[in-house]
Order: sequence, then C-alpha cells, then structure tokens
Amino acid sequence: MSIFERARELAIVQSAAEVIAWDQETYMPSQANDHRAKQLSWLAARAHEMATCDDWRRDLEDAENNDTGSDAKLSANLRELRRHFERATKLPTTLVARESSATSLAKHAWAEAREKSDFKAFAPHLEELLEIAREKASLWGYAKEPYDALLEGYERGTSTAAVATLFDQLRPEIRSIAAAAVQKSNQQSITLPAGPYTVAAQQKLNQQIAESIGFDFTAGRIDTTAHPFCTTLGPHDVRLTTRYDENDFTSSLFGVLHEAGHGLYEQGLPADEFGLPSGAAVSLGIHESQSRLWENHVGRSREFWQKWYPVAQEIFPQLNAFPLDDFLRFIRSAAFSPIRVEADEATYDLHILLRFDIERRMLNGSLNVNDVPAAWNDGFRELFGFTPKNDREGCLQDIHWSMGGLGYFPTYTLGNIHAASLFACAKSDANIATAIALGDYAPLLAWLRQNIHAHGSTLDPSDLIQQATGKKPSSEDYIKHLTQRYL
Amino acid sequence: MSIFERARELAIVQSAAEVIAWDQETYMPSQANDHRAKQLSWLAARAHEMATCDDWRRDLEDAENNDTGSDAKLSANLRELRRHFERATKLPTTLVARESSATSLAKHAWAEAREKSDFKAFAPHLEELLEIAREKASLWGYAKEPYDALLEGYERGTSTAAVATLFDQLRPEIRSIAAAAVQKSNQQSITLPAGPYTVAAQQKLNQQIAESIGFDFTAGRIDTTAHPFCTTLGPHDVRLTTRYDENDFTSSLFGVLHEAGHGLYEQGLPADEFGLPSGAAVSLGIHESQSRLWENHVGRSREFWQKWYPVAQEIFPQLNAFPLDDFLRFIRSAAFSPIRVEADEATYDLHILLRFDIERRMLNGSLNVNDVPAAWNDGFRELFGFTPKNDREGCLQDIHWSMGGLGYFPTYTLGNIHAASLFACAKSDANIATAIALGDYAPLLAWLRQNIHAHGSTLDPSDLIQQATGKKPSSEDYIKHLTQRYL
Repeated sequence: MSIFERARELAIVQSAAEVIAWDQETYMPSQANDHRAKQLSWLAARAHEMATCDDWRRDLEDAENNDTGSDAKLSANLRELRRHFERATKLPTTLVARESSATSLAKHAWAEAREKSDFKAFAPHLEELLEIAREKASLWGYAKEPYDALLEGYERGTSTAAVATLFDQLRPEIRSIAAAAVQKSNQQSITLPAGPYTVAAQQKLNQQIAESIGFDFTAGRIDTTAHPFCTTLGPHDVRLTTRYDENDFTSSLFGVLHEAGHGLYEQGLPADEFGLPSGAAVSLGIHESQSRLWENHVGRSREFWQKWYPVAQEIFPQLNAFPLDDFLRFIRSAAFSPIRVEADEATYDLHILLRFDIERRMLNGSLNVNDVPAAWNDGFRELFGFTPKNDREGCLQDIHWSMGGLGYFPTYTLGNIHAASLFACAKSDANIATAIALGDYAPLLAWLRQNIHAHGSTLDPSDLIQQATGKKPSSEDYIKHLTQRYL
Repeated sequence: MSIFERARELAIVQSAAEVIAWDQETYMPSQANDHRAKQLSWLAARAHEMATCDDWRRDLEDAENNDTGSDAKLSANLRELRRHFERATKLPTTLVARESSATSLAKHAWAEAREKSDFKAFAPHLEELLEIAREKASLWGYAKEPYDALLEGYERGTSTAAVATLFDQLRPEIRSIAAAAVQKSNQQSITLPAGPYTVAAQQKLNQQIAESIGFDFTAGRIDTTAHPFCTTLGPHDVRLTTRYDENDFTSSLFGVLHEAGHGLYEQGLPADEFGLPSGAAVSLGIHESQSRLWENHVGRSREFWQKWYPVAQEIFPQLNAFPLDDFLRFIRSAAFSPIRVEADEATYDLHILLRFDIERRMLNGSLNVNDVPAAWNDGFRELFGFTPKNDREGCLQDIHWSMGGLGYFPTYTLGNIHAASLFACAKSDANIATAIALGDYAPLLAWLRQNIHAHGSTLDPSDLIQQATGKKPSSEDYIKHLTQRYL
C-alpha cells in the first residue's frame, strides 16, 4: 500500500465518523447519545491507529525517499502528510479516544446546559476538555504558550503572539467602526415588516439562492440545527445547516450564505484527491474567508439584492411595502448583540477578541473554569457596554469548546481579513466586476475555484493569499470595506 | 477481553454502519453514493474481521470451557455466538467486502431502475448478488438446496422444504379467503373522502398514534423513504420510515403502525445487553409477528378506531361526513393489487408465495435473471388473475434483493402466522382483552415485552412461540382470524 492509498483509506474512516457526527447534530434522538459517543470514539481510535502505525511511517518514508522533487503537488502532499504524522504520533490512542468520548458527551451536555442557561452543568465537561487540550499542547510542544500548539492545528504558520499583535492593532479600529455603526443604526432604527416568515418559505428562498451562487444539491443538502455548521461526509457530500426565525427570514438566509460559502470551498476541492492534502481545505481562516465573502461581501451588497429582493418579495408578500433601500439598511444595521452568530459585520470581531482572550487565559491556567462566566461578563461589558443577561447569551452560546475546539475562534477574524482581500482583488478584474454588478457570481466563483479551492492545502495560508492577491495578508482591505460600508 | 466485551465492541461497529446506511436511505445526496459504498464496505470488512479473528475464537472457546451451565442466559448467549461464529468464519473477508459494496451500489441502481421501470439496468446487479448468495450458501453448506443456507440466516431452525410444505397447505386456504374478500369488496366498493391529506397533518396523527401504543420518540424517530423500514442504530436509537400519499392518509399510517411494531420489539429488547444475543431480536419471522400484530390485529380493529377515529376526524375534517363503519370497511377492503407493501391483509400472502417461488428458482439456477420479469408476470397472473402493467409494479417493486436479502420473503408469512397466535393468546387474558376493548394497549405491550421482547434471541423462534402461547406454531389462529374478519 502506498502512503497515498493509506491516506485515502483514512479519509474513508474519518468521513464515516463525519456521517455519524452529522446525524448526532441533526436527527439523533436524545437517549441515543451515550452509544453514539462509543461509535465515534471507536472510529476516532481506529483513524488515529491508522495514521500513526509503523506501516504508515514506513510508507511515508519510502515515498519521501523516492520524491525527486519534480512533481510539486506530490512534494506538497508528502510535506503535509509528514506534518500531520508528526502531530498525530505525539498523541497516544488512549488520549484520542478520551477526547472523542469527552467531546461527544460534552456536546450533548452543552446543548442542555445552554437550553437551561446552567453553566455549572457544563463546567465539568469544559474542565475535562481543557485538561485534554493542555495535555495535547504539551505533547505537541510549543514555543511560548499552550495556545500556540492548538492554534497551529487550525491555522498553520502563525502564533498566539502574532494573533495577539494583530488583534491589538485591530481593536481600536474595530471598536471605533463598531461604535459609530451602532450609533448610526440607533439614530435611524429600522425593523423588518412583521412575520411570520414561514420556515417552508424561507427554505424555498434559501435553496434558490444557494443554488444560484453555485452550491450543488446533488452533492449536498441543508438541514436544521441550533448552531449552523458545514461538514463534509465525502467528496460529493457536503452538509450545511441553518436555523430559522419566523420573525426574520434573513437570519436563516445569511446562515445559509455563510455555510454555503464553506460548502462551495468543499465542493470546489479536487474530488479525486479526497483524502490527500491536495484535496483538503488548508485552514479554518481560509475556510472562513470563503464563508464571509459570500455572506458579507456578496450577500449584503446592493447588486445582490437588486436581483434577489424581487424574488423575496414574491415569496414574502409583506416585503412589498418595504423598499429595497430600507431592506439594505436593515441587513446592514449594527447593534451590540450578546450573540456572536447573530452579530452583524460591524461588531462581529469584538466577539472574537473576547473569546481569544478568555480561552488563552483558560489554557494558561490564569482563569479557572468556574470563573469563566464572570470573566466573560466583565470582558463583554468592557467591549460592548452592557452585561449579557444570562450564560445562555454569554459564555454558553457557542458549540466550539464542547467540541474541543480551543484555539479555533481567532480564525474567524483571520477569515474576515482574508475575505476582504480576496473580494477586492477579484473585483479588480473588470469581467468579474461587471458580472457581479448584474448579480452573476459565476465568474467570481470560477476565480475562487482557480485561486483558492483548486490548491487544496498545498500552500500555507499566507502564501495562498499572497499568490491569489499579489499582496501579503493585511487588514487594509478589511478596514477599508468596513469603513466604506458603515461610516 | 472477554467474548462478551468483543461482541459488544462488534455491535458498536455494526451499529455505526447502520447509521451510515440509514442516512444513505433517507437524506444522502445522489452523487455521494460511490463514496458511501466505500465507507460501508470498510466497516463491514472490519466487523467481519473482528467476528472471525483468532482472538474471538480463543475467547469464545475459553468462555465455553468455563460455562458450568448454571446460568441459562449465559449458555444461550454462548450457543448463539458460536452459531454466528461458525457462519461468519466460513465467509472470507473479501467476499463480505464484495457483498457490502455490491449491495450499496445495487440499492442505488434499484431505486433508479424502479423509478424508470428499467429491469435491464438492475439485472447485472441482481446477477452479481445471486452469484454472491450462491457462493455464501455453498460456503455455509446446506442439506438440500442453496436456499436452505440463506433461510437459516433469517429464521433459524427451519428449512426450505418445511416452508414449501407450509406454503402449499396455506395456498388453497389463502386463495379462497382472498378471492371471497376481494369479491365482497368489489360488490360494495368504498372510497375514502377526497384528499388532500397533507403530509404535515399525517405526520401529526402518525406521531400521536405511535406514541400512544408505546413507541418512545426520545429513543427513535420517523423519516421518509420510498420503501418503509425499521433499523436500529443503537440500544436507544430506533429509526422508522414511512411514505406519504396525500390522497390516502391510511397508507402512511399503517406503514407507521407496521414499522412501529418492529420498533417496539427493538425498544423492548434488554438495552444493557445490546450486542449480545440476549439483547438481539431472534428472527425476521418473530420480528414480523410484532409488526403485523400492531398493524393488522390492533390497527384494523374496531376498538382501535373507536378511540382514534374522532382524532383523525379532527385532523382531517373531510372525514366528518364519513362514518366509522364506512372507514372500517375501507381499511378492511380487499383488492388484488400488484404492490406487496400496499396489499391488504387478505391478499398479502399471495405476494409472498410468488416471491418464495421466484427466488428459490433463481438460486437453484432453474430461472435466469433475464427471465425474472416474465416468470414474475406468469406467476402473478396465476395467483391474481392479471399481469402487472410494468416491472416497476412487478419484479422491481421490492428493495430486498438489492440489499442481498435473498431468502427473506418467507418470514413475512411466518410473521403473519405468529402474530395471530400471539394476539389470540394475549387476548385470552381477561385484563388484556378489557384494556384492548377500551383502546388501552399498555397491558398488551407489557405481555409482549415479557413473553417475546425480554427473551432476545435466547430461544429458537418456534420454542419462543410455544413458550409464549402454550402451543406449537400453527396457522390455525391465522386462518381463523382471516376467516372471521373477511368472510
């Protein structure tokens, strides 16, 4: 067996676990959770064994020794397989199984704790997941702090300190844009015409829009969960989820645009390289750049709604007396919301700054789990000017920690930054700009396919951005975009 | 590891495959099928390896050697594990993987072939599955014909010849009851008030009814598929499916009652013995006895509808002008339908007689795959008096062959026979009969839990029936029931 055949077999096992995890989030009855944890744990342990066994090591070494360097993609694949192998072999199977089981139980506990705003019920799960995360970080090793080792798994080639520096630079800019945007919205407050916007009607509009921007429903679907996500169950099987508010159809719609952005990236990866690094997404930051691009740069633009608002008006007759300009003001209105996934573009990054700070301190041990609600509320008040009314709207709102996803949050803001750079660069092509002005996004998608999706994870995120845009990653385009839209 | 720990671990893997197969039937997008086949094939191969490895053999032998016979359940578990081991070790891993892959592809091909009534598109898949079935039969060995070896997998302790003898005895009785029932229905034909009976409203009624007979929705759900089924994804995770006809709500409802009957059996098995024979259903015939009991003996009774018809009338106002007596005549009307799953109680077994004959001949090699449509149509005409108008309504209607389920069909009629015996015996208890008369099925379910479900597969099907009813299995109660209801 070659190392590439092994990698493809591993992807079969990992994607089988994704099917099972998807069902756990979407349709599984509540009593089934304990056994589901065992299924996921078994598969995670097998996957870990496969990716860390002596045969894998030997076949990887053989391929490395035979690599003449004449095939850049092959060399990139070997380099990435080596990187994954080094990370994976530092973790014992028992720890991997323990994490899988812990996250499976924690996700369920989190959903219940969140429902009841009962942080204490979730605290022991978070404690266990932190302990596992620290153990992983210490096994992987890190330059300065445990957070470095976790971050590397989501966004290779960066560091906690680099993110902190970037965030410290962004903080004053984002705070002033957010404050001004919120003030403007408060001065000319606007509300959507009253619902109900039925779930069935929302699904119809969402499906049409997702299809029109290129999401392939013969290789994917949209289901419903409390926390929207996108997951890949195979090379032609991308599952999105959203959630519905019958008083506001834009909540599910922007959820779908966001997740479809992730989905377009997954559907744009080379399907015949599924399981190889060249067939896989490169990082969460790049992934988020795709979702943010479609959600915010496309989905909140005038051009987009010039095409789609008449369709929405046909589906929701109450919009007929609500002019397009008012609708645009509505979908661009800014407010200091306690909930990240409902946050608008102008205030979103404040949520990330808070989370980055909290989880960095939790990992460093300078913040105890029991003190998280208080620390959250203090940090939130400083950034937003008020305190969340309960933990359901505070530190319990996100699924990430319950999935063991510590170190994940900063990639959202990295994604915002990259999205702005990519969109600005693509739009500088006259053909793409003309098509966008007409509501035709096929040329934009083709550009993303070619410059981002087709590369899989053969390039480092920052190199990928530089190659696509001709510039090093920078927040310049992002601040420019926010300033133009909100000030 | 003890053999029981091994059996429990095997059940984790097998139930993981069930989750993936369930998604394949319910929600998977069409392009995902090829990769899905790989996932299922990998899991099937692992499960086969686990259940046939030297460690398994050694641990089974150890447990057998240590068995003092003082614990009847333990001895029964070992006896069944031995039986499964002997069957499993006769099949090489390559054949198991080949079958898993073939059925995964065949199920997809069947769905398309059925849609288009294109038998030729399915024929090569059926040919491959027959070849695999013959190879399995020859590896397992059989007394008289290959069909024996396959039947044993579904209904242990019986033989093709025994089934043929039973069916030959039933044939004239069933034919005359069916003919008379159809004639009577033709003389006083009755139709349900016009639809639409919306899917959402049907789901509401079905859910209420399933819940009221004891199906636990915190440990199960109902979804939609072309061919209804029940599958178990874990000890507290039983999935039913049904299909909807907006002109006739009873189609989905009796589908749900049938599958919920299977589901109640699965939910009634000892959950903490999941993976052991004592925690597993004993045979398809016994399984079918549970579904038929709830579908026909309960679901088509006057007592049942005295309770539920007013609820149905509230949900479907068009029923208000349709008296209960007419409704009962409607749900008991008999007709010679080409479709088995839509067949009424009076004509159902004719469909089984036909399938048993066809598949027995296919396996013996006396019927070529290409001649199946003609043989089907000839056999059907002899039993029903007309020819199906196409293969979609003929030999392509059932999913079973595409799943490799050759030898499965006779268990439906065995189930009908057992259902009648069990229901007659339970009703001879005055408390149960009184409750049933009031539409309260909790005592009946408790009787089934105690006399059937709790035993798992520790007893042979015929012994289980004899112990529950005090009589050897016989078609006496079944013929009596059909005669009383239809003549």
